Amino acid sequence: MKIQIINGPNLNLLGKREPEVYGKKSFDEYFQVLTEAFAQHEIIYFQSNSEGAIIDKIHEVGFDVDGIVLNAGAYTHTSLAIADAISAVSCPVIEVHISNVHAREAYRQHSYLAKNCLGVISGFGLESYRLAIQGLELN
Amino acid sequence: MKIQIINGPNLNLLGKREPEVYGKKSFDEYFQVLTEAFAQHEIIYFQSNSEGAIIDKIHEVGFDVDGIVLNAGAYTHTSLAIADAISAVSCPVIEVHISNVHAREAYRQHSYLAKNCLGVISGFGLESYRLAIQGLELN
Amino acid sequence: MKIQIINGPNLNLLGKREPEVYGKKSFDEYFQVLTEAFAQHEIIYFQSNSEGAIIDKIHEVGFDVDGIVLNAGAYTHTSLAIADAISAVSCPVIEVHISNVHAREAYRQHSYLAKNCLGVISGFGLESYRLAIQGLELN
Amino acid sequence: MKIQIINGPNLNLLGKREPEVYGKKSFDEYFQVLTEAFAQHEIIYFQSNSEGAIIDKIHEVGFDVDGIVLNAGAYTHTSLAIADAISAVSCPVIEVHISNVHAREAYRQHSYLAKNCLGVISGFGLESYRLAIQGLELN
Amino acid sequence: MKIQIINGPNLNLLGKREPEVYGKKSFDEYFQVLTEAFAQHEIIYFQSNSEGAIIDKIHEVGFDVDGIVLNAGAYTHTSLAIADAISAVSCPVIEVHISNVHAREAYRQHSYLAKNCLGVISGFGLESYRLAIQGLELN
Amino acid sequence: MKIQIINGPNLNLLGKREPEVYGKKSFDEYFQVLTEAFAQHEIIYFQSNSEGAIIDKIHEVGFDVDGIVLNAGAYTHTSLAIADAISAVSCPVIEVHISNVHAREAYRQHSYLAKNCLGVISGFGLESYRLAIQGLELN
Amino acid sequence: MKIQIINGPNLNLLGKREPEVYGKKSFDEYFQVLTEAFAQHEIIYFQSNSEGAIIDKIHEVGFDVDGIVLNAGAYTHTSLAIADAISAVSCPVIEVHISNVHAREAYRQHSYLAKNCLGVISGFGLESYRLAIQGLELN
Amino acid sequence: MKIQIINGPNLNLLGKREPEVYGKKSFDEYFQVLTEAFAQHEIIYFQSNSEGAIIDKIHEVGFDVDGIVLNAGAYTHTSLAIADAISAVSCPVIEVHISNVHAREAYRQHSYLAKNCLGVISGFGLESYRLAIQGLELN
Amino acid sequence: MKIQIINGPNLNLLGKREPEVYGKKSFDEYFQVLTEAFAQHEIIYFQSNSEGAIIDKIHEVGFDVDGIVLNAGAYTHTSLAIADAISAVSCPVIEVHISNVHAREAYRQHSYLAKNCLGVISGFGLESYRLAIQGLELN
Amino acid sequence: MKIQIINGPNLNLLGKREPEVYGKKSFDEYFQVLTEAFAQHEIIYFQSNSEGAIIDKIHEVGFDVDGIVLNAGAYTHTSLAIADAISAVSCPVIEVHISNVHAREAYRQHSYLAKNCLGVISGFGLESYRLAIQGLELN
Amino acid sequence: MKIQIINGPNLNLLGKREPEVYGKKSFDEYFQVLTEAFAQHEIIYFQSNSEGAIIDKIHEVGFDVDGIVLNAGAYTHTSLAIADAISAVSCPVIEVHISNVHAREAYRQHSYLAKNCLGVISGFGLESYRLAIQGLELN
Amino acid sequence: MKIQIINGPNLNLLGKREPEVYGKKSFDEYFQVLTEAFAQHEIIYFQSNSEGAIIDKIHEVGFDVDGIVLNAGAYTHTSLAIADAISAVSCPVIEVHISNVHAREAYRQHSYLAKNCLGVISGFGLESYRLAIQGLELN
Repeated sequence: MKIQIINGPNLNLLGKREPEVYGKKSFDEYFQVLTEAFAQHEIIYFQSNSEGAIIDKIHEVGFDVDGIVLNAGAYTHTSLAIADAISAVSCPVIEVHISNVHAREAYRQHSYLAKNCLGVISGFGLESYRLAIQGLELN
Repeated sequence: MKIQIINGPNLNLLGKREPEVYGKKSFDEYFQVLTEAFAQHEIIYFQSNSEGAIIDKIHEVGFDVDGIVLNAGAYTHTSLAIADAISAVSCPVIEVHISNVHAREAYRQHSYLAKNCLGVISGFGLESYRLAIQGLELN
Repeated sequence: MKIQIINGPNLNLLGKREPEVYGKKSFDEYFQVLTEAFAQHEIIYFQSNSEGAIIDKIHEVGFDVDGIVLNAGAYTHTSLAIADAISAVSCPVIEVHISNVHAREAYRQHSYLAKNCLGVISGFGLESYRLAIQGLELN
Repeated sequence: MKIQIINGPNLNLLGKREPEVYGKKSFDEYFQVLTEAFAQHEIIYFQSNSEGAIIDKIHEVGFDVDGIVLNAGAYTHTSLAIADAISAVSCPVIEVHISNVHAREAYRQHSYLAKNCLGVISGFGLESYRLAIQGLELN
Repeated sequence: MKIQIINGPNLNLLGKREPEVYGKKSFDEYFQVLTEAFAQHEIIYFQSNSEGAIIDKIHEVGFDVDGIVLNAGAYTHTSLAIADAISAVSCPVIEVHISNVHAREAYRQHSYLAKNCLGVISGFGLESYRLAIQGLELN
Repeated sequence: MKIQIINGPNLNLLGKREPEVYGKKSFDEYFQVLTEAFAQHEIIYFQSNSEGAIIDKIHEVGFDVDGIVLNAGAYTHTSLAIADAISAVSCPVIEVHISNVHAREAYRQHSYLAKNCLGVISGFGLESYRLAIQGLELN
Repeated sequence: MKIQIINGPNLNLLGKREPEVYGKKSFDEYFQVLTEAFAQHEIIYFQSNSEGAIIDKIHEVGFDVDGIVLNAGAYTHTSLAIADAISAVSCPVIEVHISNVHAREAYRQHSYLAKNCLGVISGFGLESYRLAIQGLELN
Repeated sequence: MKIQIINGPNLNLLGKREPEVYGKKSFDEYFQVLTEAFAQHEIIYFQSNSEGAIIDKIHEVGFDVDGIVLNAGAYTHTSLAIADAISAVSCPVIEVHISNVHAREAYRQHSYLAKNCLGVISGFGLESYRLAIQGLELN
Repeated sequence: MKIQIINGPNLNLLGKREPEVYGKKSFDEYFQVLTEAFAQHEIIYFQSNSEGAIIDKIHEVGFDVDGIVLNAGAYTHTSLAIADAISAVSCPVIEVHISNVHAREAYRQHSYLAKNCLGVISGFGLESYRLAIQGLELN
Repeated sequence: MKIQIINGPNLNLLGKREPEVYGKKSFDEYFQVLTEAFAQHEIIYFQSNSEGAIIDKIHEVGFDVDGIVLNAGAYTHTSLAIADAISAVSCPVIEVHISNVHAREAYRQHSYLAKNCLGVISGFGLESYRLAIQGLELN
Repeated sequence: MKIQIINGPNLNLLGKREPEVYGKKSFDEYFQVLTEAFAQHEIIYFQSNSEGAIIDKIHEVGFDVDGIVLNAGAYTHTSLAIADAISAVSCPVIEVHISNVHAREAYRQHSYLAKNCLGVISGFGLESYRLAIQGLELN
Repeated sequence: MKIQIINGPNLNLLGKREPEVYGKKSFDEYFQVLTEAFAQHEIIYFQSNSEGAIIDKIHEVGFDVDGIVLNAGAYTHTSLAIADAISAVSCPVIEVHISNVHAREAYRQHSYLAKNCLGVISGFGLESYRLAIQGLELN
């Protein structure tokens, strides 16, 4: 399988930003672990703080890869445009969150994206990504 | 690991009820598959249509098992008492949903339980349970 | 026809509870009248104060009887789980209310159940049940 | 008994308008059936698309007939003035709906009229009118 | 001065409708008293249960009379179209209510009309009309 | 008749404060006019910017005078305590406003006081007070 | 093409009412221009201040003309009954507004009608009607 | 006096569940203290996690005991059916809470039950029960 | 113990104001009873209709007495400033109400103060004060 | 005239994305048709998925062209920044939508942009753009 | 310049009340620092816990001083009457807060006063006052 | 000190856009004044209309400079992602606004950013930036 991971705003600071919420490991370190664990798949990684760049990437890969694992960060809760992009492409999209978003502020409990995704996985720390790939395998 | 699966109201009708939403397989059939796939774990299954009985079960096992996989069905959206039960016990609880609840009625998009759970997995059909057990393994 | 009447919480106190709202006759007395009036039908009666027991009963009879006449009492306004049970079974369900619920508190004016029922009858006192059975005959 | 049936806006198009919701029979055809079924009563029929004309009719007959069967169509959900007219007259009024209004748009689930009516019957197709007349007989 | 009194829906039943709220005197009887008390003015009276007819009347007299005393009844709370009519004409309009609308149901506490009127007088029984005319004299 | 006029916060600045809304005349000048116009009544005047002092005054005079004319200014929209004071005393209270409060900010359209008053008069400039006294005479 | 223009409440005062919002030209003058510009079509004009009369007209022509251009004025924001009439007939309906309703009061930003119309055109002054007819030609 | 104490969901875990909120003492230990302190009364204790069982118990004792001390736990905030049960029986009911519910989550600040109870006592730890019994003595 | 009782607006009228809600006894009479019943404590009484004076009193005694029993009347529901005063001082504060505030208007069901108080007691008539002092003893 | 067309997020997928909603034609094909139809005008086309780039473009051309035809896609409903950009430039802007946004999800019925635009055209498929240009010609 | 500082409820306890939020310094100590720092200005200080006294002070100085620095404490969020006083006087008013009110409870995020003030400064501890005076100098 | 000023969308048009709200001076002119006034500090300026670019800049400088002065324009009210970026970096951030946002549209009165900032300064025109730098000096 060919799998695209897309990380949204502020996730480039992982390991640096609020480590009590998001942990101390950077995503690059974790990505290393992930690609080794799923050597049978081609996993590609993209991060951007820009809503438009995330939409561009979804368009670019969304008719081509076997699945997108998307952690849209704060855009999860505010971006109708990313939601439209998800429904516009043909591959399945899994929404992931590192922290348990339901245990945080009220405005983090609504997702514009979820209804257009295949499924949602949240709260397992970085391992949410691993479960998402396993979810794509099972799909 | 010792893992308790708890299914809430109407999930006893799985395979019979709205198969276009929930699929045609009964949970018993799937449970067979699951226990075989995770032969290394002790997996126990309980279903009830009663809010009180679900709370009783969480109390009974929640200081003993290594994790609870909970699909509380409609009580997810209305039961503050089950939410309290989850926070009262010591083992981690994973909230699962078979369908993508975000793509359904608005009142199915709020979970009273999620903030007290370790994580949430929804939308992968019956395989949401498998991912939840994998999530407990990774925890 | 085989018809199941299900009464929900506090309806066992009929005749005793707030008689200025619900009247002075017990449901058992009325049920006597009803079975005589519809001697051609098999009418069965069940009452419970438990949401779970009501769901169990709907599951038990809902693929078998020709119709359910359901007065879910206060659960009408709070139980999404009973609503799911109604849509899960194959027989038609008629929602009935003894009093005119619209003339009472605001929170009694929304029904979780009604959208999954065939129809709703309210405000005719105990005779709401009679009309519901006539409604099933006409269906 | 002398019974007035009042139909509100767009019900003159019955049989023509959205037949998948309201059925293919015109109200005139059904009225024929109804008057034959209740030959012992005097049943009078009035339809208007005008809120004011409906109020005028309620005033005109509301101190004289034994009951009004009122399907106020969309005015059910917007007309406080018709609600006032119902409470101003002395005869009982039954609110009826052909379709199950609870299974439709959210704004069709609130009735300004219901709290001033004796009772409400909805969801039985055209036979809702028959049940309403039976309800008046039982009153 | 030339003054137009306009009464809206159900006010033709005054004296007959809920006398504990609106009193036992018909408006015709009161109008007799009023015209005698203000013999120096030409006072004209119009009542309709139709929103459209009230708008027509406001258009007809609103560039001609010295003031309109308007009791729009239930339309006060639902009619944006009458509000537009008031702002479209050149004469001042006084909104009157017989009962104290603030002591009644919540939905009777908002007026669509008031912001386009010169002033509002409510709660003085039928004498609210007399005060409104005195208000026009003072204007 | 013995009549108490009570003016609330900022009304001491009348003539000085936002004259395009409240006019250029001070209340003292107007009060002179008023007492002359109603020489047959004993009219007493009190102003305070303090919610507590207004309540004290209502208690002091409210079992003694024949009526209170109350312009509570901004407290109209925020003071439940003044509302309680009005319902605690035995004399009738008329709520008055100089400007048409409905044509101003949304939060000036709800009155905590009105439901406990005999009536409300607003929008006639300072002459609202004169109409209020006439209203008390008619009561 | 046969095209029906329907104007709702207060639009008969065009040119007279709030000219800074709606312009100084009467609709009759503009209708002259319009019929000349579209000499190839049969264009018919109807105006009423009555909700019921507008519904009657939609019923009368809605199975016969090639399109309706509807400016329902204030009823746009309050009439569910006109919305039902639009969905009941077979010809396309275009909702038009002279002014940019979005730049006005909040309650003018919701349309009950729009979801049942083919399209909406607002803000082009009287020329909104011309664009609507061009829209029907393109349909 | 004969007094029934009823504890709702999760209160069986007292002393074990979130001791920083609810204290370290089990209810059984406290009940011992209580019965000794009020040796002159017959005090009976019941706990259930089931809404239906709580309603059953209220029905069973509510026409017989001199008062019910009810800590309905989370059902306080979600159960209209228990509220109906309270108003259906004849003995007074005191709502108690161990913690100060107002200092917790927003959804714990509304009680469905309180309006049907004689009084409410919250925030005194387990001693809230003692005060409730004293309240019944004073009643 | 040294205990300060503070009564807010309109409570000086106790026995005189709405006796069907608040009873016929004045607070002075009841205070006599109270000081006799708790002869072992020093109980001081203060009443004011002024929000500011209540804050002043809380500041004055709140670092000195062993507890404050506060019935803030209508300010309970509107005064954030009193809530701040409670959290600013070091002694415990008990919120009391004579009537069952939950059985009254909706806006009397929210308390700004409760979350900063030790506990709340309402509905026991004047005896709510006695229970509050007992609650302070138990604290 | 010099006219700038700006398309927002996901409109680059036109013809590919949800063709049952947006049609099968790509915007490039349609743009060809449009420029031929309006050979007398200079029409320029820009598309971006980035909110910032759309603002940049509005700034760049907004003091220079004779009008902007803007389909901001999902940003219509979420971007206050684009709304500010529209009010910051001097040329008129027409908001267009291909589909009838009012017949879709509730959150697509509010536009942040419309109040700053000259007018709005929606529901005419791709021909909405043609009508917008005609609207600019008529302006 | 002549500058009036006005502090509202509970600010007299500064240094004593919740020092983790408001700091340990009393306002008197800080005022000493401030008057030395701005020796070129006449700075006057007033504190009251009474809404009415704050309004009185604003009236007294508001036509005389060059600016008011106002920390209205909790009245910021509840007092429409103080807001009216600010707009009634002629000098500029700066709203200041010691803590960052946006990081606290939701109800502290709305200010009734701000829209009538020249500007707002919050979050700089006691130095918010210094910045406010500098803001007045720059005005 | 090293200070980064970041301006968000449409602020590049300062002096050109709505000068009655934002003044006639461009930010470049003002920046000249500012750097001269604070010659002792290193002040850097960045403007972007792109949410993503603002986040990138906050990340880039936020662990390095002594403070950020941020005017996020319309993104203040809609960008949760920028709010997250502020809390992710280590330097203090001051939110500034040129105009008094509280005196404008309701949706400009809520800031997603403020709770993560050190403080907020608004309403002093361009001098809000000067005060913000002084605030950083005092910090």
